[in-house]
Amino acid sequence: MNAHAPPNAPRYRTLDMPGILAFLSGLPDLAARLGGTRAQWTIREVSDGNLNNVFVVDGPRGGVCVKQSLPHVRVDPSWKMPLDRTFFEASYLRDIHPLVPGLTTRCLHFDPDLFVLVVESLAGHAVYRTALMSGVDWPRVVPDIATFVARATFGTSVLSEPFERVFDRHAVYARNQTLQRITLDLVLDDPYHDHPRNHWDDVRLDDVVGRIRTSPAVRRAVDALRLRFLTCPQALLHGDLHTGSIMATATDTRVIDGEFAIYGPIGFDCGMFVGNLVLRRFADFSPDAGRRCVAEIARFWDTFVAEFTRLWAAAHPTPSATSGPCAFFVPDADGASPGRTAFVRAVFDDMVGYCAMEIIRRIIGYAHTADFDVIPTHDARTERRRAALSFACGLLDAHGTQGDVEAAFGALVREDVKGF
Amino acid sequence: MNAHAPPNAPRYRTLDMPGILAFLSGLPDLAARLGGTRAQWTIREVSDGNLNNVFVVDGPRGGVCVKQSLPHVRVDPSWKMPLDRTFFEASYLRDIHPLVPGLTTRCLHFDPDLFVLVVESLAGHAVYRTALMSGVDWPRVVPDIATFVARATFGTSVLSEPFERVFDRHAVYARNQTLQRITLDLVLDDPYHDHPRNHWDDVRLDDVVGRIRTSPAVRRAVDALRLRFLTCPQALLHGDLHTGSIMATATDTRVIDGEFAIYGPIGFDCGMFVGNLVLRRFADFSPDAGRRCVAEIARFWDTFVAEFTRLWAAAHPTPSATSGPCAFFVPDADGASPGRTAFVRAVFDDMVGYCAMEIIRRIIGYAHTADFDVIPTHDARTERRRAALSFACGLLDAHGTQGDVEAAFGALVREDVKGF
Ligand SMILES: Nc1ncnc2c1ncn2[C@@H]1O[C@H](COP(=O)(O)OP(=O)(O)O)[C@@H](O)[C@H]1O
Ligand SMILES: Nc1ncnc2c1ncn2[C@@H]1O[C@H](COP(=O)(O)OP(=O)(O)O)[C@@H](O)[C@H]1O
Ligand SMILES: [Mg+2]
Ligand SMILES: [Mg+2]
Repeated sequence: MNAHAPPNAPRYRTLDMPGILAFLSGLPDLAARLGGTRAQWTIREVSDGNLNNVFVVDGPRGGVCVKQSLPHVRVDPSWKMPLDRTFFEASYLRDIHPLVPGLTTRCLHFDPDLFVLVVESLAGHAVYRTALMSGVDWPRVVPDIATFVARATFGTSVLSEPFERVFDRHAVYARNQTLQRITLDLVLDDPYHDHPRNHWDDVRLDDVVGRIRTSPAVRRAVDALRLRFLTCPQALLHGDLHTGSIMATATDTRVIDGEFAIYGPIGFDCGMFVGNLVLRRFADFSPDAGRRCVAEIARFWDTFVAEFTRLWAAAHPTPSATSGPCAFFVPDADGASPGRTAFVRAVFDDMVGYCAMEIIRRIIGYAHTADFDVIPTHDARTERRRAALSFACGLLDAHGTQGDVEAAFGALVREDVKGF
Repeated sequence: MNAHAPPNAPRYRTLDMPGILAFLSGLPDLAARLGGTRAQWTIREVSDGNLNNVFVVDGPRGGVCVKQSLPHVRVDPSWKMPLDRTFFEASYLRDIHPLVPGLTTRCLHFDPDLFVLVVESLAGHAVYRTALMSGVDWPRVVPDIATFVARATFGTSVLSEPFERVFDRHAVYARNQTLQRITLDLVLDDPYHDHPRNHWDDVRLDDVVGRIRTSPAVRRAVDALRLRFLTCPQALLHGDLHTGSIMATATDTRVIDGEFAIYGPIGFDCGMFVGNLVLRRFADFSPDAGRRCVAEIARFWDTFVAEFTRLWAAAHPTPSATSGPCAFFVPDADGASPGRTAFVRAVFDDMVGYCAMEIIRRIIGYAHTADFDVIPTHDARTERRRAALSFACGLLDAHGTQGDVEAAFGALVREDVKGF
């Protein structure tokens, strides 16, 4: 049974469904949360991601979600992978849950031998990407994610905490290298040159791919964003904040799957989320989809800025002459702080850049999204992918110059009048 | 004997001189390096810094330098301090010695129980600050330090190494918090507001101190530099690269005392060194001291840029369309790389900013330098300190706008004509 335990995790074994139930019944707190007896518990597998086994267990009283890492990629057993990713997801939840209690799940248990993470069940929620594809309109999600990013990043940055606490966490997340390597390669590097992991199914994308790869301005922007990802640890990031890492209902939004957590530039989380809103927009033929998408991005950005700024002001309520490690850019008596404005502006530039890189890798890189599957014909899918790639290329070409949502994303509206 | 061992280092004891000799005689490699027998070895204490005990031991064949951290600041036993600083200095030497073998000392031994570090002896070298005050002119030192910074930083950055190796080191140096706290407080924070550790001995400095503290532009620059120190880990820094951390002869230059090592912005090491050249200039009444100082800074900067650029080019010799984690800003066919130019320009801006902050803290902060002691009268010392503070204030006031050495530091030459 233990034949496949990695040498550095001798007690590891992959749990099957009865194994999960036995595991839970050995943990009194979790057993009490489920209620009743083990015979009354039901379990079903919900894994749909690439990496891990995930199960939902329900009892008479409540439910839990159990995630276990495998010594390989779930969908490709030949791609070996260390087990520690659930450790980093558990750490992330412990670090950020106090900051965003209603916007993610609590870590209920982590087993360091089995690499099993147990969190609250969201069985009544849908994965947001799936919900979007089925046509829902849940206006809470976008501002909730903006609030999530603002609180989780501000609260783990040196803007709010002594650097010692932040550096303690640096030391932890600097070890999350397997998944950072994936981000670095799949998101920030492979799509920009020939690589066997890249793929797209229509030669009519070749010219725009060529444009992306040969434009000096785009290459410079891409290199700068890749370098910033590695050398700008502003805050603890989720690291994989696409619409598939969100579970929601019409009124409740939860961020899941924080295994990519790393210190990095705040705009990375913003950009990955916004990039997925844009991908969705290009798969949406309804009139006014562009205008609605721009409005959503503006809602995201405005909510993020308002919350981040509010937290920053609240951390240092009185304008004063006091400098100090946590008192960066204290406003003047009139409330103005050009330093804070510049900080937020840099987050905006990063958001735009990483948004573009997310769009590109989701169309020509290794891991595509399902968004375009709703488009009925191959030709129309290709056309929309071309349009999305061109749009992303434009964002990178003018990177760092756009300044506001309308200027950066306004081209999405012009797509409306093309009359698909 | 072990009464003062800290709880987390039960085998620690502070070694006296016989204790050092006994310690060395128990290490065959070091005993062989010294040669002869223990009875033939001589030992003398050379501690002159604030923090540690340092001894030089000579034998018939060679010499070694032995540094032991104390559970408190050497010059202030009431200021308790963890022992781990020699651990970080040993780690730093192990990380950078292969990159700069002739420009620092090799770590010959580190004892993790006693926190004793043994390095090559530089008994024939002088501390560069002391040598400068005695009037030497050693033209090798400035370009050697530029080469040191270029090689030690490039070689520990993601520009030359897979991020995994860099992040492994992040995890180590993120623990060097005691000394980072000192840098953050003493260098980057205290001087900018009232703090009991600040001191200066003449009310005639009060007005320029007031100007530094109330100028919105200066405050913004200071906050940005402080934030960058904590959130811009471009490379492994020495962290305390003033002229007292350099031992030299007319022909040989060695960097010592790397206990402040941390990942941070490369311009921090540059700026601290250049700041100490500028401090020296303000203590120097000889005609043309300003012009010579500007020429030295230009020599430093030009050598740094040439070496850093050479290393970057050598790491990726052929211009190619290949992106990749270590291939940032690969030049076009004509050799141009605006991305690399921008990177180096940002290092320049950081150098200027940290230079100014080093000048300021050395005049009004906790730890002053001896440079001004050579000035014969109190009035003249005050005058030169005022001039140095004004100069530093000007650097911060125009921070990020100067662009080159002449524009940023040219004011040093104008001091020549004031006719001190
Ligand atoms: N807390 C939860 N409650 C209910 N279902 C969940 C929960 N967390 C994840 N899921 C389901 O499991 C799937 C995979 O989870 P995820 O954390 O994304 O795993 P992976 O890291 O392997 O992608 C999700 O897409 C969702 O359908
Ligand atoms: N390798 C060496 N060889 C000879 N003398 C040294 C050596 N390293 C340091 N010293 C002397 O010891 C002094 C203190 O060393 P340093 O490393 O600066 O200690 P601290 O960290 O306590 O400031 C130096 O100023 C120098 O005079
Ligand atoms: Mg996942
Ligand atoms: Mg020292």
